[in-house]
Amino acid sequence: MIIQLEQGISSQEANKIRDKVNSLGFKTTDVITQRCKYIIGIGKKEIDIRQLGGMAGVSDVHRVSDAYKLVSRKWRVKPTEIDLGDGVVIREGDFAMMAGPCSIESEEQIVQVLEHLNANGVRIMRGGVYKPRSSPYSFRGLGIDGLKLWHEHAQTYGIKIITEVMQSSQIEDLCKYADILQVGARNSQNFNLLDALGEVDKPVLLKRGISGSLSELLQCAEYVFSGGNEKLMLCERGIRTYETAYRNTFDLNAIPILKEKTHLPVIADPSHGIGVRAYVEPVALAAVMAGADGMIYETHCTPEKAFSDGQQTLDFRESEALIKKTRATFELRKSF
Amino acid sequence: MIIQLEQGISSQEANKIRDKVNSLGFKTTDVITQRCKYIIGIGKKEIDIRQLGGMAGVSDVHRVSDAYKLVSRKWRVKPTEIDLGDGVVIREGDFAMMAGPCSIESEEQIVQVLEHLNANGVRIMRGGVYKPRSSPYSFRGLGIDGLKLWHEHAQTYGIKIITEVMQSSQIEDLCKYADILQVGARNSQNFNLLDALGEVDKPVLLKRGISGSLSELLQCAEYVFSGGNEKLMLCERGIRTYETAYRNTFDLNAIPILKEKTHLPVIADPSHGIGVRAYVEPVALAAVMAGADGMIYETHCTPEKAFSDGQQTLDFRESEALIKKTRATFELRKSF
Amino acid sequence: MIIQLEQGISSQEANKIRDKVNSLGFKTTDVITQRCKYIIGIGKKEIDIRQLGGMAGVSDVHRVSDAYKLVSRKWRVKPTEIDLGDGVVIREGDFAMMAGPCSIESEEQIVQVLEHLNANGVRIMRGGVYKPRSSPYSFRGLGIDGLKLWHEHAQTYGIKIITEVMQSSQIEDLCKYADILQVGARNSQNFNLLDALGEVDKPVLLKRGISGSLSELLQCAEYVFSGGNEKLMLCERGIRTYETAYRNTFDLNAIPILKEKTHLPVIADPSHGIGVRAYVEPVALAAVMAGADGMIYETHCTPEKAFSDGQQTLDFRESEALIKKTRATFELRKSF
Amino acid sequence: MIIQLEQGISSQEANKIRDKVNSLGFKTTDVITQRCKYIIGIGKKEIDIRQLGGMAGVSDVHRVSDAYKLVSRKWRVKPTEIDLGDGVVIREGDFAMMAGPCSIESEEQIVQVLEHLNANGVRIMRGGVYKPRSSPYSFRGLGIDGLKLWHEHAQTYGIKIITEVMQSSQIEDLCKYADILQVGARNSQNFNLLDALGEVDKPVLLKRGISGSLSELLQCAEYVFSGGNEKLMLCERGIRTYETAYRNTFDLNAIPILKEKTHLPVIADPSHGIGVRAYVEPVALAAVMAGADGMIYETHCTPEKAFSDGQQTLDFRESEALIKKTRATFELRKSF
Repeated sequence: MIIQLEQGISSQEANKIRDKVNSLGFKTTDVITQRCKYIIGIGKKEIDIRQLGGMAGVSDVHRVSDAYKLVSRKWRVKPTEIDLGDGVVIREGDFAMMAGPCSIESEEQIVQVLEHLNANGVRIMRGGVYKPRSSPYSFRGLGIDGLKLWHEHAQTYGIKIITEVMQSSQIEDLCKYADILQVGARNSQNFNLLDALGEVDKPVLLKRGISGSLSELLQCAEYVFSGGNEKLMLCERGIRTYETAYRNTFDLNAIPILKEKTHLPVIADPSHGIGVRAYVEPVALAAVMAGADGMIYETHCTPEKAFSDGQQTLDFRESEALIKKTRATFELRKSF
Repeated sequence: MIIQLEQGISSQEANKIRDKVNSLGFKTTDVITQRCKYIIGIGKKEIDIRQLGGMAGVSDVHRVSDAYKLVSRKWRVKPTEIDLGDGVVIREGDFAMMAGPCSIESEEQIVQVLEHLNANGVRIMRGGVYKPRSSPYSFRGLGIDGLKLWHEHAQTYGIKIITEVMQSSQIEDLCKYADILQVGARNSQNFNLLDALGEVDKPVLLKRGISGSLSELLQCAEYVFSGGNEKLMLCERGIRTYETAYRNTFDLNAIPILKEKTHLPVIADPSHGIGVRAYVEPVALAAVMAGADGMIYETHCTPEKAFSDGQQTLDFRESEALIKKTRATFELRKSF
Repeated sequence: MIIQLEQGISSQEANKIRDKVNSLGFKTTDVITQRCKYIIGIGKKEIDIRQLGGMAGVSDVHRVSDAYKLVSRKWRVKPTEIDLGDGVVIREGDFAMMAGPCSIESEEQIVQVLEHLNANGVRIMRGGVYKPRSSPYSFRGLGIDGLKLWHEHAQTYGIKIITEVMQSSQIEDLCKYADILQVGARNSQNFNLLDALGEVDKPVLLKRGISGSLSELLQCAEYVFSGGNEKLMLCERGIRTYETAYRNTFDLNAIPILKEKTHLPVIADPSHGIGVRAYVEPVALAAVMAGADGMIYETHCTPEKAFSDGQQTLDFRESEALIKKTRATFELRKSF
Repeated sequence: MIIQLEQGISSQEANKIRDKVNSLGFKTTDVITQRCKYIIGIGKKEIDIRQLGGMAGVSDVHRVSDAYKLVSRKWRVKPTEIDLGDGVVIREGDFAMMAGPCSIESEEQIVQVLEHLNANGVRIMRGGVYKPRSSPYSFRGLGIDGLKLWHEHAQTYGIKIITEVMQSSQIEDLCKYADILQVGARNSQNFNLLDALGEVDKPVLLKRGISGSLSELLQCAEYVFSGGNEKLMLCERGIRTYETAYRNTFDLNAIPILKEKTHLPVIADPSHGIGVRAYVEPVALAAVMAGADGMIYETHCTPEKAFSDGQQTLDFRESEALIKKTRATFELRKSF
């Protein structure tokens, strides 16, 4: 049960509501986000919610039977919009493009990618400065210095930055220079990290776990939201199956299912979704058609020389073609 | 190794070639299809194929390292076209629509569906008369009498019939009344059935197994092709994964991968691919965008009353919308 | 609902019962097996079964809510025993050993294996004469002639034969020379084959599908049982997962779960279950400890030279060790 | 490549070795553990290792082609022993028992479990004070205060403590009161946590990820080992598959495969491995037979009232029976 509170509610009124909800057999959790105050009631009892709806300080009451509550579309019908400033907004009805290299490698590389994105009207650049790698002996990213450099250049283009956060202790620094923090597939159920991201006022993109269920992904979003941060989006990036003809199995079905279940934007990652450079484009365009609100993909001046993920990274010519086709495809979908 | 023979080759010439191939350390298999004669050489030796290419009766020689040979695009670059007559052709560059109920139920139902397809320009109707069912106590289809009735009506509309074959003994009868024989997911590795389908001159649609790999699907096609029947197409219909939010996981990646690996047409089944009526459309349109050559989906006058698969079956209004959007999407893809 | 009928029931009495069950809103199926007559009622209504229990000709009435009925342990508590003659019985409380090569290859090989089994007290020999192979160009078995030869020699040792059946048309011949017919993983949902096996009086071993669920396996058994054949056993042989460090993932959990759900014997196949010769033994012994009623594994005089599956086949020394350890492990389990 | 250094090596000698390895085209990483110093060389070149073996300060040189190096059995043949003090040692040849509740709940519960373990000779108690939960609204554990209380009582029995660590910031406190730190399935690829655990001198048990491959598990162990901590063990706890008849699919095959690939102890978790209380025992005994070096399972005075995982938790009577049967089974295995 979600009890949405009035903005100016007094602590006395809030206490009364909490006591009432407890007395009805529900465990309560207080949630204060950038946008609103809520009391979440967890319990299985069937009650007449009108007895709560009439109380002073209550703005609205909703019953949500899913394990996740605040991220459910059963409660909030209006799609979440995430405003990054400078006119860059991620929302249903637009199509957000995010592109860039797997890893930030050098100043030269940063500028090359920014130039490419700028020339093609892409307003968000991706890139890793902390890299989760299967082997401890692999390149692990340039760290915060790489991000500072990147930030400096990105600002001159008015291009926003999305980068991966791997542990709570990185959040404070990353928040200074990045516009969106990404939680990677391997950390998708790192609950302490999710808790910590709930406490900041910075948009978060949550990738689905390597074999995460959609229900788990939504509950991970609930962690961040109930921690206080409503600025959330979800990302389908392929799941692990028995098939070995490609890297991951892009779960196209996840897109319409997530769009039904949550008000959060749904982003597709076709690069990890198939893991084969030649087929990033068809997967990407399919995701547009299936209802995604945006896309994040890998591009690099010379993919063959990329420090990581070169085999699934587009060169700039391929990237430009993808951008154009994506726009045409999105226009067609909107026309339906 | 594939040795394509000249049409008018003498048996003496063929024997010489076979002996030569054997002497080089390869095991040979003779293949005679509707279109051509081949000798397949299986072995791992590296040889200079020119010593075969120059022999009398040899039209061409190809090395194919995959486990499948004749269905490989490495050998035959030109996409296979399947002509059903009356101007109905399944081929790359067109988009074949096949639609109809899960099960053929009654004359009334047959006519309703035919009317709907005819009004919307769909030239191939699907429907099961032999139904593979998990439980032995479920409805198992009307059998050959249902097919005869269906055939009679379909002819008056010039609409072609695709229906499932479950065992070799049904083939002869089915061939009289159906235009395409479908091998279902549960029979995808029923090798005796595949052998038997190699011996007839009737197009076959092979569905991927419930957890079949793409390599296995191609080898199953090789069974039919090497048995003598080149009129083959492949169908992605969703695979089994851990996710329970929908029925099957539509493997979108399979479409571009199969298009690369084989010259056979690739058909998408969005109905089984997600198993949820409301989301058949986005999956279908995504498949178009990903490069499918056609689509097979379930539609019924009143899905709620269908004998089987009602939960994933479109009504005629939804079907009509899908047909229109599919055409617009295919046009856009062709324009790229 | 299962209505067990008295042996001497008249057709008039049976009609009355059938009419009564229909009138209560259930669809009926008649089942006549080697052992008994039943009427199966399919429907969701809650009824008082006493109104059926009192009717003339009714021996017993059971409600079974599972999708499968006759194979359920909720109905028949007593474990099924399968008597192959000559004192060879497969049943809970004993441990049935079945061993032999993947493929029957030659008379010499047959005799070598029989000698080995005989020397070690193994009374059932496995071997394929019809082989399901991924590629159409692979060795497909010696066919019925191989079986005749095998049968001749096996008889002299009093050793029973289990071999795979791939299609209905093979059943009649196989029944003459084999003691158990095995349905392979790829045919586990070949419903026509299962129907046909229901009509013969010959024990059947059903392998779980490559990614078959336990519920599907039980429903496949229901096909054979409801077709008339109660002499059934189930086999866990590993499932398909994402892991690539071995061939299949042996689903140990399946053993206790199946033992709970069905009265049929449960057999483990450790050879396919891991697919690595060096680890067949630990998997086999684990299966004994988990509650299996028997085991089927691959052994060959010289596994390196086997026509198929050599990489998971034990030589006779390894086989002998396994047999001894299996017996000691089974004795320990029985002592608990 | 692993270059094991002599204990008293001078920094000058070490520099020379590092330079030499670099000059041969390898990237080097220094590793200093509780037991030894190593230089790891990463590269693909084939070199004659004798040119390194002869250098001053070099104790041994090994080539390891796997992605993991220091945890490989190809390098270190002798199994790792983990000595917890007071005669409690985890090692091949013994069988380590660890048991206790999912969550530490209260002083009363702690004492009940300790009494039970003590009476049955179990020397290591499991229990969670930081609990990873799918929903943010679930009980998340008593935290460090719960651990202090537990530690106080455990000491009086001489029983060792294993508990889960969820983030780096908890390590310092946990090290004071726990004897083994456990990394849960959801954090199995939390590389920052693994890095941090490499820096402490405290045994670590690494659980396999929810759909982690065995290769990934070994690389995660490599993170901790190369960070400086050799006191490591691995735990198979069931993987995610399509099967829904139980909670997780216990991957029995993982046990012999891991024993082959690594010198680290391999522990089985039958409670999570099947997730069904009635079948924890058969899975556990199977794991013993398959070659596990130890077992961790859930037990509670009254499983029905446990705060979490009650459905897979044994009561004390069941636990006692399991302990006895485990010992008998292990004795049998050792006798082979």
